[in-house]
Amino acid sequence: MREINIGLLGCGTVGTGVARLLLERRDLIASRLGAVLNLKRVADLDLGRDRGLRFPEGVLVADARRVVEEPGIDVIVEMIGGEGIARELIAKAIAHGRHVVTANKALIASHGNELFRAAAEKKVDLYFEASVGGCMPIVKALRESLVGNRITAMTGILNGTCNYILSKITDEGSTFADALAVAQKQGYAEADPTLDVEGFDTAHKIAILSALAYGTPINLKDVFIEGISHITPMDIEFAGQFGYRIKLLAISKHRGGAVEARVHPTMIPFANMLSNVNGTLNAITVTGDATGDIMLYGRGAGMMPTASAVVSDLVDLARNMLSGTAGRVPALAFQRERIRGIPIMPIDRISAHYYFRFSALDRPGVLSTISGILGAHGISIQSVHQKGRKTDGAVPVVMLSHRAREADVQQALREISALDVTAAKPVVIRIEDESLED
Amino acid sequence: MREINIGLLGCGTVGTGVARLLLERRDLIASRLGAVLNLKRVADLDLGRDRGLRFPEGVLVADARRVVEEPGIDVIVEMIGGEGIARELIAKAIAHGRHVVTANKALIASHGNELFRAAAEKKVDLYFEASVGGCMPIVKALRESLVGNRITAMTGILNGTCNYILSKITDEGSTFADALAVAQKQGYAEADPTLDVEGFDTAHKIAILSALAYGTPINLKDVFIEGISHITPMDIEFAGQFGYRIKLLAISKHRGGAVEARVHPTMIPFANMLSNVNGTLNAITVTGDATGDIMLYGRGAGMMPTASAVVSDLVDLARNMLSGTAGRVPALAFQRERIRGIPIMPIDRISAHYYFRFSALDRPGVLSTISGILGAHGISIQSVHQKGRKTDGAVPVVMLSHRAREADVQQALREISALDVTAAKPVVIRIEDESLED
Repeated sequence: MREINIGLLGCGTVGTGVARLLLERRDLIASRLGAVLNLKRVADLDLGRDRGLRFPEGVLVADARRVVEEPGIDVIVEMIGGEGIARELIAKAIAHGRHVVTANKALIASHGNELFRAAAEKKVDLYFEASVGGCMPIVKALRESLVGNRITAMTGILNGTCNYILSKITDEGSTFADALAVAQKQGYAEADPTLDVEGFDTAHKIAILSALAYGTPINLKDVFIEGISHITPMDIEFAGQFGYRIKLLAISKHRGGAVEARVHPTMIPFANMLSNVNGTLNAITVTGDATGDIMLYGRGAGMMPTASAVVSDLVDLARNMLSGTAGRVPALAFQRERIRGIPIMPIDRISAHYYFRFSALDRPGVLSTISGILGAHGISIQSVHQKGRKTDGAVPVVMLSHRAREADVQQALREISALDVTAAKPVVIRIEDESLED
Repeated sequence: MREINIGLLGCGTVGTGVARLLLERRDLIASRLGAVLNLKRVADLDLGRDRGLRFPEGVLVADARRVVEEPGIDVIVEMIGGEGIARELIAKAIAHGRHVVTANKALIASHGNELFRAAAEKKVDLYFEASVGGCMPIVKALRESLVGNRITAMTGILNGTCNYILSKITDEGSTFADALAVAQKQGYAEADPTLDVEGFDTAHKIAILSALAYGTPINLKDVFIEGISHITPMDIEFAGQFGYRIKLLAISKHRGGAVEARVHPTMIPFANMLSNVNGTLNAITVTGDATGDIMLYGRGAGMMPTASAVVSDLVDLARNMLSGTAGRVPALAFQRERIRGIPIMPIDRISAHYYFRFSALDRPGVLSTISGILGAHGISIQSVHQKGRKTDGAVPVVMLSHRAREADVQQALREISALDVTAAKPVVIRIEDESLED
């Protein structure tokens, strides 16, 4: 039986998962593929660590660069992460005519365009299913299953750390800081959680998906990013009273010749399937003009789910090799000559429904001052809720707007903040609810 | 640009959807595929009907057999349905060396094994993504995305008609008959709804998926099938009180060298994502040993969603043709020589949790008689609910069991039915709830 030789670079958590599947599921994979995925080399600086696996003699080596250059290696699996050495090794592997599989969303989001160009020139494939959504086959769905569709929108929960923290605040009324501490203890958040909780990881993913969906180069720098560290139990409670849950959503829309691509905490109605996606789980809804909404749901991270996605890429590549082809499916879903830049709309220009919470000082006329400023900026309010309880001498006043322009909202909030009628910076959270009137 | 020539057999609802995508999305598809999917012939006996499409001169013809034999046709799309002429035409197309795409679940479930054998012998592909779950890419997920996993279970809502009817009963308290009538009026149910409401359509689908998941031939005849026509608003209301919704589920499990494959109304907890899948929508959860649970959700039927799945198969086949390969992915996910029969467990031998509703006559000792019989068969009750209201002189007594064997349950119910303590046949509904103690 034919063997496809694999060189694995980096044997940390996910790398170990990939090695485990290749070793322990070798026969199962062969029974589907009709060839053997042979783990020929594993490169990791740490040769001594117990990974719970027995590598055949000579498989584990320290020098990743030599694996990339080693004759007879068919596919390089990059599991190092980051944008430094990983980028250099992938570029080198491509230059050596190797196919590559990676789960490195930061690298693909930032340098995918140049890496895909290099791969196309060398007629090799660079696959990256595991870079978005862990085991959910979202890259394959966009590249292969939805090929007959104009894709108009995507809405996703793509970061398990944030979803865990928000679920914790929702279920237990914890503060963000406490929920984060629990997430760190449970191993769901890094010691430095910035990449996750400030929305950058989610932005990497939606940048990749937007390119796949609309046929445009990956554009990370124009994605609007707002994290979850300012979300309070109070806002989650108010959201619940309006029938909403707060999720960190990646939102991507394509209409009128422009793309919206943004990451921010968002209120969505209970009836939206995404509102039931809790804990570390991920999900993404894709809207195609033929399919309507389809949703994928599953574990977006973790050793074995991510390894499963890597192995699916390896089998795809092996099938290409067995039929002597490469570039069977274009990296970014569209033929390279058909990819054209589509601008991402600046956040100022989007329109949405908004939730506002003001800490109104307990004085006459405050409500009319606030609503007057909103009205002057064309922001029309559909409901106002004021509860009696005081926080630091101020009363929370909550308003939901009709559809308004982000630029107007920001300007109005600046003006309201500048007055002395509020005790704290206003809270603003965007709402995605198709049932609302504009 | 290379053209792949397509012969479409049957231009009813879904066939028209396929033709529309091929005509109206010709350039979009080419921008992804790098070749043109050319709708060369459309065969339908009804040449005069207005399908809202303008076919180029000579494309629409009456004789499907001639299209199958016509030189230059690369792929035959069978959209006729049923197991008669469709089967004959697919066999003929394969014999002529044509690749085939079909959405015909009844045919694949009943005759897939022989058709796939014939296709393998002629080195052509027979693709069938649209046969299960409409636009949800479940066939591709099982064949390609989960290749590194042992698949242990699948649970799906795979029939939109039944899900619509059950949602209607749940939301509005309608009877089955009224909900069916509305479904028929809305075009969600056929004039003869048997295939849908008695569970046969769902059985076709789970038979196909079980083969794909476990590497065994398609086995429709041993799938246990129970429909929804006996489901009452009363049972749905009781279910709600216990935190359950009733769905027609396809359940497939692989463990201990045997397969469970069954279709029946099932109570699932609100926390199960499937319980939120309402109306005509479909969803399926697949459990892999590496991925854990993943779920796909979307429109399981209808013109354009089904057409989208057909087009994804066409693009896959076109990519195979462009790289000069066939049989790239084996039809039933496993290499033919690795497929082995795995028996489906008779329903008698499964075990589950059960909901019972007895119409107890209002006499002393009835409850103890019933529970005595259940106990004598080793069926242990975890809760009993008796409401005071009488229906036809009888009181509904509801019990939830601990895990019990189906054979014991059926025997106990026969004995209880034979006594004169109940006014009607007991109602029994299986429960799938992982949080229950055994």
